[in-house]
Amino acid sequence: MLHIIYDVFMTSASPPLYLQLADEVAAQIEAGILQPGERLPSLRDMRSRRGLSLSTVQEAFRRLEDRGLIQAKPQSGYFVSARAPRPHAGSPTLPGEVEVDPLLWSYVQDITDQFGARINSFRSVAPAPELLPLAQLQKLMADCVRHEPELLSDYGSPAGDLRLRRQIARQALEWGGQLAPERLIITHGTIEALNLALSALTRPGDVVAVESPAYFALLYCLKAHGLRAIEIPTDPEYGISVEALELATREHAIQAVILVANFSNPQGSLMPDSAKQKVADLLASRDIPLIEDDVYGEFYFGAQRPRPIKAFDQCGNVLYCASLTKNVAPGLRVGWIEAGRYQARIEVQKYISTHSTPLINQVVLARFLEDGGYARHMRKLRRKLAAQMRELASGVRRYFPAQTRFIVPQGGCVLWLELPASFDSIQFFLRARDEGIGVAPGPLFSTRGEYRHCLRLSCATPWSPQQTALLARLGALAHELLAQARPGAQAPQRVASLAL
Amino acid sequence: MLHIIYDVFMTSASPPLYLQLADEVAAQIEAGILQPGERLPSLRDMRSRRGLSLSTVQEAFRRLEDRGLIQAKPQSGYFVSARAPRPHAGSPTLPGEVEVDPLLWSYVQDITDQFGARINSFRSVAPAPELLPLAQLQKLMADCVRHEPELLSDYGSPAGDLRLRRQIARQALEWGGQLAPERLIITHGTIEALNLALSALTRPGDVVAVESPAYFALLYCLKAHGLRAIEIPTDPEYGISVEALELATREHAIQAVILVANFSNPQGSLMPDSAKQKVADLLASRDIPLIEDDVYGEFYFGAQRPRPIKAFDQCGNVLYCASLTKNVAPGLRVGWIEAGRYQARIEVQKYISTHSTPLINQVVLARFLEDGGYARHMRKLRRKLAAQMRELASGVRRYFPAQTRFIVPQGGCVLWLELPASFDSIQFFLRARDEGIGVAPGPLFSTRGEYRHCLRLSCATPWSPQQTALLARLGALAHELLAQARPGAQAPQRVASLAL
Repeated sequence: MLHIIYDVFMTSASPPLYLQLADEVAAQIEAGILQPGERLPSLRDMRSRRGLSLSTVQEAFRRLEDRGLIQAKPQSGYFVSARAPRPHAGSPTLPGEVEVDPLLWSYVQDITDQFGARINSFRSVAPAPELLPLAQLQKLMADCVRHEPELLSDYGSPAGDLRLRRQIARQALEWGGQLAPERLIITHGTIEALNLALSALTRPGDVVAVESPAYFALLYCLKAHGLRAIEIPTDPEYGISVEALELATREHAIQAVILVANFSNPQGSLMPDSAKQKVADLLASRDIPLIEDDVYGEFYFGAQRPRPIKAFDQCGNVLYCASLTKNVAPGLRVGWIEAGRYQARIEVQKYISTHSTPLINQVVLARFLEDGGYARHMRKLRRKLAAQMRELASGVRRYFPAQTRFIVPQGGCVLWLELPASFDSIQFFLRARDEGIGVAPGPLFSTRGEYRHCLRLSCATPWSPQQTALLARLGALAHELLAQARPGAQAPQRVASLAL
Repeated sequence: MLHIIYDVFMTSASPPLYLQLADEVAAQIEAGILQPGERLPSLRDMRSRRGLSLSTVQEAFRRLEDRGLIQAKPQSGYFVSARAPRPHAGSPTLPGEVEVDPLLWSYVQDITDQFGARINSFRSVAPAPELLPLAQLQKLMADCVRHEPELLSDYGSPAGDLRLRRQIARQALEWGGQLAPERLIITHGTIEALNLALSALTRPGDVVAVESPAYFALLYCLKAHGLRAIEIPTDPEYGISVEALELATREHAIQAVILVANFSNPQGSLMPDSAKQKVADLLASRDIPLIEDDVYGEFYFGAQRPRPIKAFDQCGNVLYCASLTKNVAPGLRVGWIEAGRYQARIEVQKYISTHSTPLINQVVLARFLEDGGYARHMRKLRRKLAAQMRELASGVRRYFPAQTRFIVPQGGCVLWLELPASFDSIQFFLRARDEGIGVAPGPLFSTRGEYRHCLRLSCATPWSPQQTALLARLGALAHELLAQARPGAQAPQRVASLAL
């Protein structure tokens, strides 16, 4: 399967030469033409064979290295990597209760409550305020307040303001989405959309399938709804294993599947279109609804917005959730859901859950989408996030232990690090927190306290010398903790469960 | 038990003479000194006995008549009423599924979606925009946007903005509430507060006790949570029957009780303090949490804000929910919950459900409470609602069939009419809707399609000759429907259930 690596700075239709070369080599590795352990032609060979500059070849190799496809050995050249052992390779888990360690919950509170506050952040997945279009929103809101004060007194309809729904529908055309405005339901961020979908589709005790690792707030939702989870192995690069998902649907009565196909949190994985198509077809054929969280879909670094699975949905089986929370205005709390053939149920649920979403917040965002400020803002935001991601990845490469594995995502704002099995990310989290540095430890992203040796770092904060210094400090801390750990030991799995 | 009738225009400490007289007579009726059917002294007798003006005595008698305590017989004078047969007098129901007739749900959508739109309204329980402090809110919001644009980019903490929580705590001092700011959790209106409480306290299949009749959105919440309901007989004047509630708690495993002690919807009943105290004690002793919805507590027509049951809570057993939605800004969607000893669980639920409430909406309301605009606004709003309630009651008396029974509430904005058993409020609703007039039919307020002969009318729309004309038209329609109904027939009970 050919996997195109988009350049983070690419804006024209045709990718630059180094990316074309990287893609080509990647495709050969994917196809098994180049085998793990095999030596690549030297930089000079490649240069003369292809008529490219040395720097172009170097850049291509660097990209391949970033993606974990090749590695340099000193004095020997570049070799095709043995593919990193992928977590959970192979099989889905059995259905199980979602365990929430009360200790981990207290970390979530740390992560949440101190947003933007005293902790220096490699932890928030929302872009920092300085990356957001505050001046435009401020202007639009002032204007709405002046000319439409009735927005403050009007409940609005549960489904939301039609101006906003029209703009969201228009926006979706970019990925080929045919979202009729009257079929969209506005929510308090994506989190409410997910909850509405779970309320409409499941009852306590039901089983839902999720990626593993998965976003902790989603796992808490499952727990709050009394659901059991099947965790499906998920590749840090290509997303959920379709084969494992297929197996799970055959072996268990699954009530719904929840996926982040584009730049998942915490891994940043991106499902290829072919896998999206397969998942859409599989779940439609099994009559299992898919709840798709596309909150990061707009955060692509390449030339084109990746399509969500919704784009491959022929029968209204996908409940598509997204928001303007992370990319435009966290404080306005506006998301939406297009619920396919479950629309009527979701409408009732929205009415019951929170009645309606504040009108003025909706209208401000409608106008932001309408006036073209959105497209400009997103181009800028994507460019900045991509640059910040490269800084983060390069800093991790520089400062973290050499055994640290990661795939640099093609979008989003998180980097998922896998350290040796003896690394304890909870200890690391606590130590970092004591020094005023925020990270997210791996077990937050598991229903059963796994991924203790993994870490999520975010690149949502603008880069600065201070960020570099903090990252260097994190790297030193990782070295320290690893040195203290007994080699070959496993970090402890701690699981107790919080009552919700 | 002496029940003080506050005058709707009363602002001084000492009630006017006609009210003192009405109170006195009411107390004699309550105490059984004056018996049902007994003739009262004539107006002239009363005037000379008490040394009052004729108009004072007339006004007192009119008040007693309003409250259904006495009735005039032509040429014979005034008689103590046979007390209206109260719905469900006596026993609680057995626990049962909450049935939502899909047809009724479509009416709810009518009621909700067309808020403020083409339907002339006796149906919305939210004061009309012209009764709200839009100019002040507009000014405050413009100011916040100008000086604190970061409110748009900040998620805020799940529990909410501390400025608002402080103001809410300060406000609660009026009824003696000791609500610590750090124990308040801000929500998307009261409806989210109720949902959080239900999520934290119950699991599907559990039994909760509610008033009957009860607000339809609450009943839908119960259904969405998969709960079974016990309906407790509720007096249109004095609220829930404490005896029936006590019986229900003895006979069934009740997981939570939900009450609107002050100016319930749809009846407008007000529990006496003694009953509030009893309920607080009863539920504390049985360890059954009480979810109190005090969204109408601020809508008192008398001199003093009635205390919520929370004021009698000694052990954190009451989860107190209220909002600034109905009385200040429906469009901002801000409510709160003080969850007593269930606080920690509610905090988790809030985080999971919608993460946080838009910050700017919170801060605008905090400033409105802080600057004193709130108290002035509420004084005005209460005066207007009281006047509108009197117009409504007097119009119903004039235009509706003589058999129409109702108690004029001492606060809130709804009037609950009970017509003869053969009256079909669903037909009435449909006919009225065809003529562009909105009302709420009785079965909306029951878990099993009861109250078909009852109607809820709202006085939230400012009074005008047009309102009078519309009410006259409703009255004519009621006469018409009653004339068509077979006397002695019962309106049909239709129950099917909507899938949620």
